[in-house]
Amino acid sequence: MTDRLLLHEDSTSGNCYKVRLTATMVGKHLDRREYDIMKGETRTPDFLANVNSNGRIPVLQVGDGFIPESNAASYYIAEGSHLVPTDPFDHADMLHWMFWEQYNHEPNIATLRFWMHSLGPDNLDDLKRLQMPGKRQAGNAALKLMDDHLFEREWFVGENISLADICLFAYTHVAPDADFDLERYPRVIEWIERIKRQPRYIAMDT
Amino acid sequence: MTDRLLLHEDSTSGNCYKVRLTATMVGKHLDRREYDIMKGETRTPDFLANVNSNGRIPVLQVGDGFIPESNAASYYIAEGSHLVPTDPFDHADMLHWMFWEQYNHEPNIATLRFWMHSLGPDNLDDLKRLQMPGKRQAGNAALKLMDDHLFEREWFVGENISLADICLFAYTHVAPDADFDLERYPRVIEWIERIKRQPRYIAMDT
Repeated sequence: MTDRLLLHEDSTSGNCYKVRLTATMVGKHLDRREYDIMKGETRTPDFLANVNSNGRIPVLQVGDGFIPESNAASYYIAEGSHLVPTDPFDHADMLHWMFWEQYNHEPNIATLRFWMHSLGPDNLDDLKRLQMPGKRQAGNAALKLMDDHLFEREWFVGENISLADICLFAYTHVAPDADFDLERYPRVIEWIERIKRQPRYIAMDT
Repeated sequence: MTDRLLLHEDSTSGNCYKVRLTATMVGKHLDRREYDIMKGETRTPDFLANVNSNGRIPVLQVGDGFIPESNAASYYIAEGSHLVPTDPFDHADMLHWMFWEQYNHEPNIATLRFWMHSLGPDNLDDLKRLQMPGKRQAGNAALKLMDDHLFEREWFVGENISLADICLFAYTHVAPDADFDLERYPRVIEWIERIKRQPRYIAMDT
């Protein structure tokens, strides 16, 4: 018997979308439970004790076990599918891009999107305002690095789509929400369109 | 024939130490090439063009291929060893802790250590100074989460040591360099000693 997969999520989050997109692309069903992070629903004593002591979503529940961290949850779902290369070098290269996404891309592009799109520009404290230029610069550096990498390449790892593409896609394709100008990165735009043409692609708001 | 493994590193970096500790624990030989990040040696045109376009170390060179990101490089070395669980849930749980380390632990504890220990407290600009209280609080929250997780557990994942422990150990055991008081986290101290007693353990400065 296969364990039920239940995604604890906020459907406006790109990190949660990653997990849902992975599941549809490999043909697995996810049940979903919605939380509103703006109302603190992931910081309640019950959530911290029973779902994720780190107070964040997404968390993938597998039977009675819990896997926090979007890229780890996506990996669990994709394991054994065409999205996870079997060659050891390509597999490590996929992880390289997934760790890079969480360190160099998400804290800049996703955080700016959250501040501008969810909190709103009028609700940012001084420390956030002071960090914005650095995050803007680092976010553009991340997009340029992606654009350069895609020179004469279709996908981030080897010759085929992998989980690295899915994880990078989530916040890249909504970077304009944070006023990033994707027109400066034409190969990134082509790659976004390539992913959208994949079988079983779903949009973020579905 | 096995590809030669060459670690491009700065030996004072905990992220580089992770990769070396992983290699010794699984009995693999690494050649090493040293860079001084304080002199910008990882931002030269040659380094950016040929080793890592992201301008960071560590990078694991495998023959003529390159794997940036410490946790991805460590995974490549550990794959197939006792440090990587084969059970799919435990494997994803290991990745969960490795992604958590890069998102919630390293940007607080390792960054404060770099600012205080490498740059020096007199050489921090205003933005860094303003970020210090938040990083101090988030670093202590990360250590507390680890301490709570280790309640009645010896290791982070399942019943055995895994790559999650190695990756978390690197900057945790030197957190006092950044004035974190580990005495507040007694189970973390016991876990640090447990790792130091492992066969083939090497200290950071070797």
